[in-house]
This record gives sequence, structure tokens and C-alpha cells, in this order.
Amino acid sequence: MKHYSQLKKHFVRISHLHYIQRMLMWDEAVMMPSGAGNHRGEALATLNQTMQKLINSKKIAALIDSAKQENLSSLWDEANLAWMEKKYRLACCIPSQLTTESTKSLLQAFQAWRQYREQNNWVDFLPHLKKSFQYIYEIAQRKSQVLQLSPYEVMMDHFSPGLTEVKVDEVFSILKKQIPDLRKRIMDQQSQEKIISFTQSSDLVKQQELGLSMMRTMQFDFNHGRLDVSHHPFCDGIPVDIRITTRYNKDNFLDSLYGVIHETGHALYEQGMPRKWIFQPVGQTQSKALHESQSLLHEYEVCHSPAFFKFLEKEVKHQFGDDEVFSADNLYKLKTRVRTNFIRVSADEVSYPLHVILRYEIEKQLFTGEISIDDLPKIWDEQMIKYFGLPTKDNYKDGVMQDMHWSWGYFGYFPSYTFGQLMAAQFYAAFLKENDGFNDQLKKGNFTKLHQWLQRNIYSHGSSISSDELLLKLTGEALNPNIFINRVEQRYL
Amino acid sequence: MKHYSQLKKHFVRISHLHYIQRMLMWDEAVMMPSGAGNHRGEALATLNQTMQKLINSKKIAALIDSAKQENLSSLWDEANLAWMEKKYRLACCIPSQLTTESTKSLLQAFQAWRQYREQNNWVDFLPHLKKSFQYIYEIAQRKSQVLQLSPYEVMMDHFSPGLTEVKVDEVFSILKKQIPDLRKRIMDQQSQEKIISFTQSSDLVKQQELGLSMMRTMQFDFNHGRLDVSHHPFCDGIPVDIRITTRYNKDNFLDSLYGVIHETGHALYEQGMPRKWIFQPVGQTQSKALHESQSLLHEYEVCHSPAFFKFLEKEVKHQFGDDEVFSADNLYKLKTRVRTNFIRVSADEVSYPLHVILRYEIEKQLFTGEISIDDLPKIWDEQMIKYFGLPTKDNYKDGVMQDMHWSWGYFGYFPSYTFGQLMAAQFYAAFLKENDGFNDQLKKGNFTKLHQWLQRNIYSHGSSISSDELLLKLTGEALNPNIFINRVEQRYL
Repeated sequence: MKHYSQLKKHFVRISHLHYIQRMLMWDEAVMMPSGAGNHRGEALATLNQTMQKLINSKKIAALIDSAKQENLSSLWDEANLAWMEKKYRLACCIPSQLTTESTKSLLQAFQAWRQYREQNNWVDFLPHLKKSFQYIYEIAQRKSQVLQLSPYEVMMDHFSPGLTEVKVDEVFSILKKQIPDLRKRIMDQQSQEKIISFTQSSDLVKQQELGLSMMRTMQFDFNHGRLDVSHHPFCDGIPVDIRITTRYNKDNFLDSLYGVIHETGHALYEQGMPRKWIFQPVGQTQSKALHESQSLLHEYEVCHSPAFFKFLEKEVKHQFGDDEVFSADNLYKLKTRVRTNFIRVSADEVSYPLHVILRYEIEKQLFTGEISIDDLPKIWDEQMIKYFGLPTKDNYKDGVMQDMHWSWGYFGYFPSYTFGQLMAAQFYAAFLKENDGFNDQLKKGNFTKLHQWLQRNIYSHGSSISSDELLLKLTGEALNPNIFINRVEQRYL
Repeated sequence: MKHYSQLKKHFVRISHLHYIQRMLMWDEAVMMPSGAGNHRGEALATLNQTMQKLINSKKIAALIDSAKQENLSSLWDEANLAWMEKKYRLACCIPSQLTTESTKSLLQAFQAWRQYREQNNWVDFLPHLKKSFQYIYEIAQRKSQVLQLSPYEVMMDHFSPGLTEVKVDEVFSILKKQIPDLRKRIMDQQSQEKIISFTQSSDLVKQQELGLSMMRTMQFDFNHGRLDVSHHPFCDGIPVDIRITTRYNKDNFLDSLYGVIHETGHALYEQGMPRKWIFQPVGQTQSKALHESQSLLHEYEVCHSPAFFKFLEKEVKHQFGDDEVFSADNLYKLKTRVRTNFIRVSADEVSYPLHVILRYEIEKQLFTGEISIDDLPKIWDEQMIKYFGLPTKDNYKDGVMQDMHWSWGYFGYFPSYTFGQLMAAQFYAAFLKENDGFNDQLKKGNFTKLHQWLQRNIYSHGSSISSDELLLKLTGEALNPNIFINRVEQRYL
């Protein structure tokens, strides 16, 4: 194992630079004064180039070849070596100059998006997005030859290894068939229900306290993480230093709270990675679909369930005082409205997959060249009319410019959300089968059993097995969208 | 200039990693959850090693040799090449392993200091400090041969190029002769004066507003910097992304405000570096004495002057309401008390140099081996009795453990404070000679003339000339401690 041991040492160094990279990205979004944007891009480009050189070297190639001849002591080591090799092969096919140039271009496009989205300004954003897409497409094409996948599949595989067009098409066709009718039936039924709306604004400090208290309830480890404020909620970092953000809306404290819940779900997954392996590829979270399954399991499965709202009522009244608008029943109703909405991140759990499918269909066409970046507003408008009956012509802010993903080169990420959502339903159903008294504990805000189950059955595996294998092992079957569909019917109809 | 141009490109890459290093250090002190400390140390060690490798290479050596044969187009380029060569020669003599190990050890000692100082726990801090000193001493010894300076002079030179023991001894002997008598006369006189003390606590949000407003008054550029909170006030970053911190004391808003003023002085110096050169060694601030002169010029020369308090009275009353305790005269008195104090950072401007001299004398003996780290509490106690009549036996927190410097390897930094203080008085006297109406502008909070003068005469030089040359050029004479002494006499007696 001499060569494999050397490889491991080498990858520890890479993980240090990865940690640094994540901190710089967090800082860029949360702390950095805007005038530093260009230089941050340059610095990140130099860092990324340094990381790439550490992976893409003849020494590594030779070590991998030799390590493959060695008798590794465990399946973990085998999986680890496989991840190393994949990373090496993918790093090899990208010229160093392309890494530098694309990093700078993407950060510029990301910063342009922040500025121009606010202004509803597609025209000035367009050249940035075009340039970024060119880089991303070139990178995807190069990797395509290595992985024997289509360029779009390369993108999906980057975020969630194993996602292919055939697999996604199959699952999405089921959802496309079922969800529109489901939405209609739910909306019809909900139109009869009475809800009390928030009329008073909520103090931001109290909202923050509510969020922090929720994080403690969910068993977030503050010794290895923190909560801040950013433009869009996100989770970034590494297992020992994981950072989540939310944003506060004085008119609706549920927005920031559910931002916190979602991101804490991500953070718990990171914090749960096996400590022995966190500086090796196999000890890092490699699948965004699995990552999203952990945030969405907490957000939708657990914290949209009636039992949870019994607990939340007490928490909310503790912060904001006693008022009928804060009753468990009313909070439940407020959070479970199925609506037709422009914005993906504000969508309810039933409509959410349609927002993703819409983007998936656009991205596929972009990568085959059927459409170009110039066509995006037009096709976005058509898709929104097709799926939601909502025209978005000239409304770029709430239309094609609403997501940060494309500006930042995250083409191919969206399917991971929906695969995560479906996996979440399937995991949680398995958990409830083993823990049928959990709803009583949830009413008291006791998350311990859930946290232990996730730690033991999901977090502790790191990336030692694929998400498909994990699903099969834990639930006895492959991904089954009907578990989600059935749960929605049960909750809403 | 072909080789010199290549060198410049190379140093731009180094400056990117330097930017990253500063951000990680800022984050460590302001944001990082404590459980990430060890891994942050490892990551920083890897980064520092990477930076060192970029400087310490045969390619750089050859480029420097060739560049020295080229006709450089300006004095700036010549100074830049000289800085490059110095950095190369110093990086060469340190083995890579020593960089890694010392970085980790220093960060651990720094984190240990935060923890153990709170607990007044010298015993558990001692092994950390010993280990750090060993590394620092080994590094200083190696550099000593390159620079032909004593190991302690190597340390001083690292922070403020040009500071030698002869020079410091000469200046400090003047201060040691004059200050004790000066303090006595001032304290006698002040004992007759009436002062109103703060009795009410000050809202922290308003304190922050007062600080931010002061930063705007001083012409801090928020597009390239920010203000946060930390354990000890500091300034870190690079010209385009400079970050200062303060800490809030509800019982005395002047503490946080003067923390902000001091650090803003540092930040303005950074923000004023010539943009064309900020990614080259010559465009970076290389002398901490000069750096401290800029913070102390603002803190003591400008913002302890009676004229400034006319402006401050209005600002303070705007935040905290009208009260006789906030009168210009009373605020002036509160800030200019000369006292006998355990703590360097709380010292008044007249006593401050004695705190520095005390440390300088200890450090010199440490580096000659006359005393060891174990002896520090005893000698600290003796020195405090000698200079202030204050015993510190068993009081480590307010004694030998009060400064972060030693834990962090900053032996040899302290003299820069006093040299900065003396230079500040000398610079400001020169400024006032050219701008005799400035006090009237200061009463209105108009810093424009001062900012322009500093920009033109100090900031814009970057590190293209030494601080000795700068002083001579601007004030017509070498460092003259009597300018400070005379100004103190004028202000206080």
C-alpha cells in the first residue's frame, strides 16, 4: 500500500486547498466588499490552477497505476482510489489556461448576475452568460471524451455521479404526467380553506433567534459551523467548518426559517461525514442529489408535516407572542399552499419539480445546440406558459434571470433537486417504517432518533457507495417517484 | 526587460496567494467556528508552503540574475526588483518542512493564547509558546546569515526594514530619560482637573453607527473594505479588500470608537497604495513602523487634539443625546488622562512608549539567550515594577500574556509601534506647517486636506523608498523623538 499511502497524503494537500476555495467562495457571497470582485476572481483562478496542477501530474498518474496493483485493505480504500482516478482523468483533459480563464469569467458573470438581475437587465447580462457558457461547454466537451457521456451528461455527472439523460427522462416523464393533475386537484381543494395571513412584521433579531434555535433543535454543531446572511440562502464549507446563510423578510418569518431548515439539512450531511475520511475524496459528499435529499428531507418531509407544526407553534409564540395566526393549523396551511408561481425557490413542494423539468428541457437543448443563449428568454416564456400558464416576456428578473446557477456555470445542476426530493420521500418513508412513534417526538421538537438514523444509514457512508446503491440498501428498491406522489396525495388530498 | 517582465507576472501570482492568506487569517479571527482551528492551521500551512515554493525556485533565481542585467525603466522597477530579490533570498534559506511545521505551531499557539489568557493560565500556554519560539528562533538564525543581522534584528527587519538595535537603543534611551519625568508632571497637573465619568451604558448598534460614520469622515472606501467585530481590533487584507475590526464596550463607547479610528488609519494607508503596483512587492506596505505611523497619526495627532473634540461632541450627541458628559472639553479630558496601567493597548500616548521599551528589552535578552521563555513572568514582573511600579506576579492575563504577538510569532514587532508613534508626530508637524488652517476644518470634521496630503506624500510612494528616506524628504530631518516630546509638553503641560 506504499503508493496508495502516498496518494492519500497528496490528496490531503488537495483537500486543504479545497477548504480554502470554499472559504473564499463563502466570503465572496457573504462578506466581500464589491470592489474586490475582480481581484477575488484572479486569486481564485490562481488557486484553482494550483489545485489542478496538484492533481494533474505525471507523478499522480504513476502512483494511481501502481496503487491499482496493490492490495487495498478495504472497500473504502478501493472507492477512494476510484474517486482519485476519476478526478485525475478529468483534471488531465483541461488545459491550465482554460481553468484560469473560465474561473475568472464565471466569477465575473456571477457578479454581473447579482447586479443585472436587480435591474431586470438581460441585455447587459447576456455577453457574460454567453462567455461563461462557451467555457463550460468547452470543458464539458473535453470531459465528454473521457467519461463517454454526452456533454450535458458530463455536467449532470459532475454534480450527481450516475445521472444520465435516459434515467432523468424516465423519471421526469412520470412526474410530468402526474403533477399537473395533482396540482389542479389540490388547488381546487385548498381554495375552500380559510387561512389567516400575517399582518404584522417580525423583528429580525427574533427571526434570527428562531433560526438559531431551530438549528440547535436539528442538532447542528456550532463548534463546526455558523449562520449568516446572504442574498440567497446557501450552504458551503467542509465538514469541520460548514457555513449556512439565510435572508430575512420582515413580512414573513417563515421564509428565513425554512431557508435555515433547508440549509441546516445540507450542513448536517456535511457534519456527519466520517471523520477518518474527510480529507480523502471518499469522505466527501460527491452527489448533489444525495445532498439535496438531506436538505429536502428536513424541509419537506419533516418540517412540512402536521406533527412538526405542533412544535413550531410553541417556538414561534415564544418569540413573537400568542396570536391565532401562529396556531399549528394555520402555520401548516400557510406553508402548504400549492400555488402558481414565477420563482423556483418560492415554489411549493408539489409544483417544484415542474420548475426543474422546465430548466432541464432548456439545458438539454442548449447542450445539443438546438437553441443558443440568445434564445433563452423566448424559450423560457414558452415553457412557463406551457407548465404554469404564466407569460414572462420582458420579465427577466422573475423569469430567465431568477437563478444564479447559469451565471455560475451550474448547468446540469437542476435535476439534482428533483432527484433529491424523490429520494428524500423514499428515505423518510423507510425511516418512519422503523420509527413509528417518531411523530410524537417531533411534536416535542425531539429530532434525536432521526439524526441518529441519518447519521448511521446515510451520512456515515460518505461517498463509499453510490446513491443508487444506498437507496436500494436502505429502502429495498430503486428510485420510485410514486412514493413521493403518494405522500403528496396523503398530505394534501 | 523581458526577464523582469516575467518576474512581475510571477509575483502577481504570489500576490494572489498572499490575498488568500490574508483573507484566511481575517476569517480565522472574525468568523471561523473554533472547532475548525486545527484544520485551518493545516490548510494555511499548505498555502504557505505553496507560496514559498513559488518564490524559492531556480527559475526565479535565474530570472532575478538576468533582470539585474536589464535596463529597468524606472526607480520603481529597481526598487521592485530589490524587494523581489530580498524575498527570494529569505525564502531560500527556509526548508519547506520548517514553513509547514511552524505555520501549524504558530496558529495552535495563537488559538491557545486566546483560550488560556482568558483563564490566566500560564502553565498550559507555556509549552505552546516555547514551541513557537523555537521555530521562530530557528527561522531567524537562518535568515541572520543571509541578511548579516543579529537574529533579533532579523525579526525587527521583517516588520520594519532598516530597524537595527543601535538605532532603536539610541531612540529608546532618549525616551527612557524623558518620559518618566514627563508622566509625573502631567499626572500631577491632571490630578487637579475635574472630569465627569460615563455612568450610562451606550447602545452597541449606535456605537457601530458612530464608528461607521467616523470611517466615512476619515474617507474610508467601503467599496473596498468593511468593519467587523473581533476579540482584539486589527486591520488585515490588501488594498482592494481591507478589513478592520473593533470590539464594543457598553460602558465606554470611546474604546470602540478609537479602535475604529486607529484601524481606519491603517486601512487608509493600504487603500492609498498606488493601484498600478499593488500586486508587486514595491506596491505593498513593507514597513510596519510606517503603517503604525498612519494609524497613530490619526489616533493621537489628529483625534486627540482639542479641535477634533469639537467635531466629536456633535457626532456623539447625535447618537447618544445631549448630556454634559459629552461636551468637547470633557471628552478631551476623558481621552487624555495619563495613567499607570497594566495593559499596553489601554495605555495613554505618553506612557505607551514605556510599555514598548519594556518588551523590547525582554525580547533582546530572549534572542541572545540571556533569558528563556520560562523566565518571562519573572522578568515581566521586574520590568513592570521598574517602569510603572506595578507588580504582576501571578497576574498573567494582564501581564505577560496580555499581547497576542508572541503566541503568533511576532517577536520584534513592538519597536515598530514606538517608531510609528514618533514618525506620526513628525509627519503631522510637517503637515500642519503646510496647512495652518487645518484645525478649523477639523472642528467641522473635514479631513479632506489631510487625506490628500497623506495620499500624495506618503501613501503614493508605496515601498519605493525607505521610511528613513521618506521622513527626510517630507520633514527635512531624520527621526527626531523631540518632536513628539515637545508636542506632548504642548498638549499636556
